[in-house]
Amino acid sequence: MKISIPKTDKITKFIKNPFTFSLSRLIPKTDKIASSPWTIKYIWKKRNSKIKISLINYNENEANEIQIKSTKELNNYDTQKTIKWINIKWVHNEKIIHEIWEIYKIHPLVLEDIANTTQRPKIEEYNDYTFIVLKIINFSKDNHEVLIEQFSILVWKNYVITFDENEYDDFSWVKARILSKKWKITKLWSDYLMYAIIDAVVDQYFTVLEEISEKMEELEDELMFSANQNLLNKIYSLKKEIVYLKKSIWPLREVINSLQRSENKLITKNTLIYLRDVYDHTIHAIETVETFRDLTSGMLDLYLSTVSNKTNEIMKVLTIFSAIFIPLTFLAWVYGMNFQFMPELAMKWTYPAWWIFCIIVTIILIIVFKKKKWL
Amino acid sequence: MKISIPKTDKITKFIKNPFTFSLSRLIPKTDKIASSPWTIKYIWKKRNSKIKISLINYNENEANEIQIKSTKELNNYDTQKTIKWINIKWVHNEKIIHEIWEIYKIHPLVLEDIANTTQRPKIEEYNDYTFIVLKIINFSKDNHEVLIEQFSILVWKNYVITFDENEYDDFSWVKARILSKKWKITKLWSDYLMYAIIDAVVDQYFTVLEEISEKMEELEDELMFSANQNLLNKIYSLKKEIVYLKKSIWPLREVINSLQRSENKLITKNTLIYLRDVYDHTIHAIETVETFRDLTSGMLDLYLSTVSNKTNEIMKVLTIFSAIFIPLTFLAWVYGMNFQFMPELAMKWTYPAWWIFCIIVTIILIIVFKKKKWL
Amino acid sequence: MKISIPKTDKITKFIKNPFTFSLSRLIPKTDKIASSPWTIKYIWKKRNSKIKISLINYNENEANEIQIKSTKELNNYDTQKTIKWINIKWVHNEKIIHEIWEIYKIHPLVLEDIANTTQRPKIEEYNDYTFIVLKIINFSKDNHEVLIEQFSILVWKNYVITFDENEYDDFSWVKARILSKKWKITKLWSDYLMYAIIDAVVDQYFTVLEEISEKMEELEDELMFSANQNLLNKIYSLKKEIVYLKKSIWPLREVINSLQRSENKLITKNTLIYLRDVYDHTIHAIETVETFRDLTSGMLDLYLSTVSNKTNEIMKVLTIFSAIFIPLTFLAWVYGMNFQFMPELAMKWTYPAWWIFCIIVTIILIIVFKKKKWL
Amino acid sequence: MKISIPKTDKITKFIKNPFTFSLSRLIPKTDKIASSPWTIKYIWKKRNSKIKISLINYNENEANEIQIKSTKELNNYDTQKTIKWINIKWVHNEKIIHEIWEIYKIHPLVLEDIANTTQRPKIEEYNDYTFIVLKIINFSKDNHEVLIEQFSILVWKNYVITFDENEYDDFSWVKARILSKKWKITKLWSDYLMYAIIDAVVDQYFTVLEEISEKMEELEDELMFSANQNLLNKIYSLKKEIVYLKKSIWPLREVINSLQRSENKLITKNTLIYLRDVYDHTIHAIETVETFRDLTSGMLDLYLSTVSNKTNEIMKVLTIFSAIFIPLTFLAWVYGMNFQFMPELAMKWTYPAWWIFCIIVTIILIIVFKKKKWL
Amino acid sequence: MKISIPKTDKITKFIKNPFTFSLSRLIPKTDKIASSPWTIKYIWKKRNSKIKISLINYNENEANEIQIKSTKELNNYDTQKTIKWINIKWVHNEKIIHEIWEIYKIHPLVLEDIANTTQRPKIEEYNDYTFIVLKIINFSKDNHEVLIEQFSILVWKNYVITFDENEYDDFSWVKARILSKKWKITKLWSDYLMYAIIDAVVDQYFTVLEEISEKMEELEDELMFSANQNLLNKIYSLKKEIVYLKKSIWPLREVINSLQRSENKLITKNTLIYLRDVYDHTIHAIETVETFRDLTSGMLDLYLSTVSNKTNEIMKVLTIFSAIFIPLTFLAWVYGMNFQFMPELAMKWTYPAWWIFCIIVTIILIIVFKKKKWL
Repeated sequence: MKISIPKTDKITKFIKNPFTFSLSRLIPKTDKIASSPWTIKYIWKKRNSKIKISLINYNENEANEIQIKSTKELNNYDTQKTIKWINIKWVHNEKIIHEIWEIYKIHPLVLEDIANTTQRPKIEEYNDYTFIVLKIINFSKDNHEVLIEQFSILVWKNYVITFDENEYDDFSWVKARILSKKWKITKLWSDYLMYAIIDAVVDQYFTVLEEISEKMEELEDELMFSANQNLLNKIYSLKKEIVYLKKSIWPLREVINSLQRSENKLITKNTLIYLRDVYDHTIHAIETVETFRDLTSGMLDLYLSTVSNKTNEIMKVLTIFSAIFIPLTFLAWVYGMNFQFMPELAMKWTYPAWWIFCIIVTIILIIVFKKKKWL
Repeated sequence: MKISIPKTDKITKFIKNPFTFSLSRLIPKTDKIASSPWTIKYIWKKRNSKIKISLINYNENEANEIQIKSTKELNNYDTQKTIKWINIKWVHNEKIIHEIWEIYKIHPLVLEDIANTTQRPKIEEYNDYTFIVLKIINFSKDNHEVLIEQFSILVWKNYVITFDENEYDDFSWVKARILSKKWKITKLWSDYLMYAIIDAVVDQYFTVLEEISEKMEELEDELMFSANQNLLNKIYSLKKEIVYLKKSIWPLREVINSLQRSENKLITKNTLIYLRDVYDHTIHAIETVETFRDLTSGMLDLYLSTVSNKTNEIMKVLTIFSAIFIPLTFLAWVYGMNFQFMPELAMKWTYPAWWIFCIIVTIILIIVFKKKKWL
Repeated sequence: MKISIPKTDKITKFIKNPFTFSLSRLIPKTDKIASSPWTIKYIWKKRNSKIKISLINYNENEANEIQIKSTKELNNYDTQKTIKWINIKWVHNEKIIHEIWEIYKIHPLVLEDIANTTQRPKIEEYNDYTFIVLKIINFSKDNHEVLIEQFSILVWKNYVITFDENEYDDFSWVKARILSKKWKITKLWSDYLMYAIIDAVVDQYFTVLEEISEKMEELEDELMFSANQNLLNKIYSLKKEIVYLKKSIWPLREVINSLQRSENKLITKNTLIYLRDVYDHTIHAIETVETFRDLTSGMLDLYLSTVSNKTNEIMKVLTIFSAIFIPLTFLAWVYGMNFQFMPELAMKWTYPAWWIFCIIVTIILIIVFKKKKWL
Repeated sequence: MKISIPKTDKITKFIKNPFTFSLSRLIPKTDKIASSPWTIKYIWKKRNSKIKISLINYNENEANEIQIKSTKELNNYDTQKTIKWINIKWVHNEKIIHEIWEIYKIHPLVLEDIANTTQRPKIEEYNDYTFIVLKIINFSKDNHEVLIEQFSILVWKNYVITFDENEYDDFSWVKARILSKKWKITKLWSDYLMYAIIDAVVDQYFTVLEEISEKMEELEDELMFSANQNLLNKIYSLKKEIVYLKKSIWPLREVINSLQRSENKLITKNTLIYLRDVYDHTIHAIETVETFRDLTSGMLDLYLSTVSNKTNEIMKVLTIFSAIFIPLTFLAWVYGMNFQFMPELAMKWTYPAWWIFCIIVTIILIIVFKKKKWL
Repeated sequence: MKISIPKTDKITKFIKNPFTFSLSRLIPKTDKIASSPWTIKYIWKKRNSKIKISLINYNENEANEIQIKSTKELNNYDTQKTIKWINIKWVHNEKIIHEIWEIYKIHPLVLEDIANTTQRPKIEEYNDYTFIVLKIINFSKDNHEVLIEQFSILVWKNYVITFDENEYDDFSWVKARILSKKWKITKLWSDYLMYAIIDAVVDQYFTVLEEISEKMEELEDELMFSANQNLLNKIYSLKKEIVYLKKSIWPLREVINSLQRSENKLITKNTLIYLRDVYDHTIHAIETVETFRDLTSGMLDLYLSTVSNKTNEIMKVLTIFSAIFIPLTFLAWVYGMNFQFMPELAMKWTYPAWWIFCIIVTIILIIVFKKKKWL
């Protein structure tokens, strides 16, 4: 008999990628407790790779991308009449963050939140800049995992600084459009750039939601036919993923809502229409996660009911087998006794009569079970 | 023994019709990510059939319907002092949408939402027009499926453009009433036409809800008598349908509420009474979906309890059979042993005494089981 | 063995009375779709019985009740300086409703809602009158069913028109008090009459809630001792009734709340204190329904746990029987074998030794089971 | 075998005390329907005992308690410049309530609510007095029941009338403090007295909550070891008690909140700080009830899982016994057959070989079960 | 067979530490009922250890910590132009609290709340000071328990008094920073000190949440492989801990929110940014607790499903064993009967034929079970 020993390969693999969804990615690391209320300290394992800084510099007439070697170079571009987008990849180097602080005079609490990449999505408005924390969610097709990383945006009137926890280029098309100069709205202020970046992040959610919806539909199809421990573990890990997704996407609603409502001097009236659109997308993503939640809990009920059903069916088979053979064999046992005075044993017709009796009893029981709909 | 192998015919058939309710009908397709934030691209499989455009043109005195061949014709009617309803069926042709844009100068974000037919119901107010997205829900009687499609409405002061994802004529009676000139209120502005269209969409919901309620009552009747895997799959797919329904109808509340409250210049005071009525219908539909939800979850509990009950009953039969025959047969086995010195075997009265003993034991056990209410 | 075949007598009987709670009583009939947005059409089976119209006419000095034959008679009383209460029973005749419209110039949407008796409770304020829809709930003692019917109230400054879907006299005591002239407040405007009518409807809810609470307490007592399919079906139908009750009573809160808050010219300051009282009663009714809901879901859990318990107990009996007799009989079988060289068979002491061995094994097993608390 | 027949002693005893929590204590009696909207009628069984009226009369200098024989005496104290607290115990005598009405001119709706002691906690403000309904909750240590009774407070500028449904002295310490003149704040208005009374009622809740929490902890300890029907009934009746508690305490939040916010002329600024404190206690009580709710539903899950566990374990024992002995005995049966030509029967070594074979099979099966972790 | 008797060691150990989470730590002790509305009485067992009072005295230039012997010493420092932080450890001595009251004239209700350490987190604003109650949560690594204690803060314009229920030094780093004079913001008012203290408390929550998340992940890993009573008790006690955590952290949201919104003269504009940060951390902690809640309830479902699965599998083994051997042995029994006229017994080929028949039946049954996916 094949016993399905739970295969937790997938589950153990789950913790390898540092960006994989997990509880520890959601709780702020507490090393900071021993230090001052603000500490610029990257909380995950540091990597060897260098921090990459790219500067996209554009106005109505021209647009170009420059790879920055040292933060000091940034001062060179400060006086130009352009919109500047400084994208800092891999925030694991606290020194760089500190240098950025020296140039742009960011509030220490902001620096701490940039490095401590377990923040919940939020928006904080300061005098001349706005600080936004988002979560970028990716779906790794290799091992069917959902990956999460923090993405911080700082918006001034004419420059935007973004901090990226990973090395992937999540904003290639935004860049492409700026550099191709096809963007009719390059004359706009930095708020439109901010919108374009947020929109790209939110659109990314739908890619992930689609992958998960495919996983769910596969699970559902499997559930129609079978119910084993492996399937159960899959449903559970799906449920967890959806709980984490909700936790990552839900606060975004408030963030964008607050951008829309605020008397923020950075948000121009033209951009408001676009913010409304991205707000709508966020609501859509949140509602989809809610729907997933409902469906997953439905799956669990389906699973439990299916197992109950199967147990019921197995019991039926056992009971029918037992109920038919037990009375028959009782008589066989009776005539297997060694009493010396059992008159039936000596009669010629008793053996065939015994067989006829067996057949009659079987037929009666089958009719009874048919009536009870057990057969 | 008849083993009910789950018949998933219905479930697999479920995905054939492109408008059938499914998760993928609710998540925006993500092809757009690679392109600009707005892209006019129909996300479902394109069809060969031509887009149909009809223009209903009416004022106090006359009303007529014109089939439009090319979007350029539309300009001819632009100067007439009438209310115009341009109904564009089958939005799969992006070229047409683009041409509409050129004539009516719609915001690009609106165009994208019209073509990307996985939007959630919403309302967006622009300077001189209002954009509304609704879901039309139909119940296909052939294969007992719920169908969903997007329906977009654009309202200007004296014309209404609607975009329909399918080819069915969902608004026949609205048209009929306009053309018959029986409509006393043809003198009204376009907002009344908008109301009449929304009202038709909401009324359609009740038809679907009624069909589902019939399906539910059938299921309930079945559940009173039996509980098999097939029934379970039906409950689960019903539950999913209701989750999708909720997701499609729920946001409408906010849409109509916003129409009522807005200082929208398009909404006249007379129409407000009618909007209140359609708002009330929407609430009614939402509450009915909620009631369905409660009832379905009740069904699942009923199912699970029924299965537990049946298992319990089967166990009882097995246990009674076993408990009665096991002690009896023990004695049969005893006297089937071949020990040479078993004094009972040689006595004449032991065989009939054995039978009497069996009968007494059986009666005692039956009394015990009666007391425990197992019989 | 007694197999409890679910008796669904009660459930099938459930649909006989046209006013019995059922899903179809809650969803607007969709015949209207084919017609204009407002249609005066009674949606249930028409009855032969005539519509009854009674007019109660009262002021400080006198009060009398007149049975009206034709709607034209109503005009005769129009000029009198009295408060008039026109009570129209059995709304199945659309012609009468149409005549009422001609006299009192009610908005067509109101007429439609009066005839289409699946409305949810609501309030609509028009220029000189207020329209209220309520649900009257009764408990039929004959077949223990909850009955529901629509009751519509139209309030003008000095007359009230009510439309009743059934023929029972639900407001006998209100009438009695007016006619007996004991009512000190007959000088009040129509708003006090409206309050008295609503109060009577809400008080009626408590009668029904009390009947249901008795049904629930009976069910609970039964659940303490047994758990069969019949009981399960009773719990499920109770749960459904409570879901419907909630759907019928819940919106009333909003209705009365809106009456209290409104700058409605019909509501005098004196009546506000009474409205506050009836509002309080409504909240009380709603909270009681919520409590019922909690208790019913507790019942289902209790049921499921009781069944699990019973299965567990049955299994124990089966296992104890099997576990005690299987090892014993194994040895009986051993010595029933026909091997020619079984030295034990020839020894004199082996048969009594076999019996002693059996008794020892039994005692050991009983001790083990006692320790495991299975006995 | 010990079959645990559910002992419902506690449950049947539950209904003896008229103040015991039960559904009927929460639903307004409907006798009143037949009469006018306000009726002074005590709804529970009348008692022989006389109504007791005590008057506490105090100002800065002196404080005394007077037992009132007849309501007419009250007039004597009316002119004194003191704060008066008239405490009427046992509201079952409608005549007394009527006399109170004649003296103090209370609104008839208030009188009805005082006598009809199934009201939900509420506050109603009238021109010169405020009417508050509370629930006093007690825990009867004799039979571990929760008792509930209605307590009504009427507050004027310089006197407070309270109506108590029972005879117990719930406010002994409030009285004691007034009479001992230790109360520095006796100079305060009646609003402080009102606060002291409400505070005593709310503090009483915590005593009851503590008793229930002890009951819960006992239940939890029992659940760790066993799971029988008796325990299940206890959990269910606990759950019911908590549902009723919630229903009785929850509305108090609104009552005190409304006292705090109101522009009530009776509430002085000094008392507001105390009201904030009692509001905080109410929230604390409500949150504790919510926590109880969560824990009780957790208990039910624990119970169900424990039963499943036990069934699983019993099944294991049965299966192991059966699986080990069935193959063994099969071979015993084989060699118990009476075929004349069974060569094995005549060989000398077959009997010991049979025993060796049995031992090997048993060892193999035990290893298999060990691997499956069934042993 | 190993029967897993629930090991409740951990659970009984749970009550030893007086600060361990338990229901009684959440319900106000009711001794106070017998006394006046405010009573300074520590509700837990008194300890021998002395109360420790430390005074931290700092301004821009210097900072020092003084151990106070008697409360009278406090007066000495009153006139100094410094920010003073008086930290009173171990609040079990009511005399000290009373002395504090005499010096600082705190409202009696505040004193009562400081001593009665079962308060829910709250904020109360008085004329010249603000009173805040928080819960400090610790995780005892020794016995894996969550500990809870009350922490009260009183903030005046230039001094802060804190009352600590335990002896541990939870604020060592806050002190360290003040004393090291590295704190650039020592010139700030007392509100910044208050923020630093609250921030330390909230940061402490994350340490505890992290410990619990580790416990949860261990539990999850165990659940993938096994499901026994011990695991179930662990899940249940985890669930309880999370319910208590929620109750302790949730109200903090309101506290800090109220600090931010208030027109409190104590809060300076500079501190507002820091309060926003700590508010954000509180929301993060609350959301994490909610996520834990969701995950724990998912665990319970997983547990129940796993047990059902295992029962199902055990049943399969039993049924397969029984179903295969029962028909075979029936035939063995038949030919074990002692009828004298059984022609088969005398034929030579019947014994081998019997064996062949057995093998064929077994193969057929195995094929049937394979088809049903039971093997």
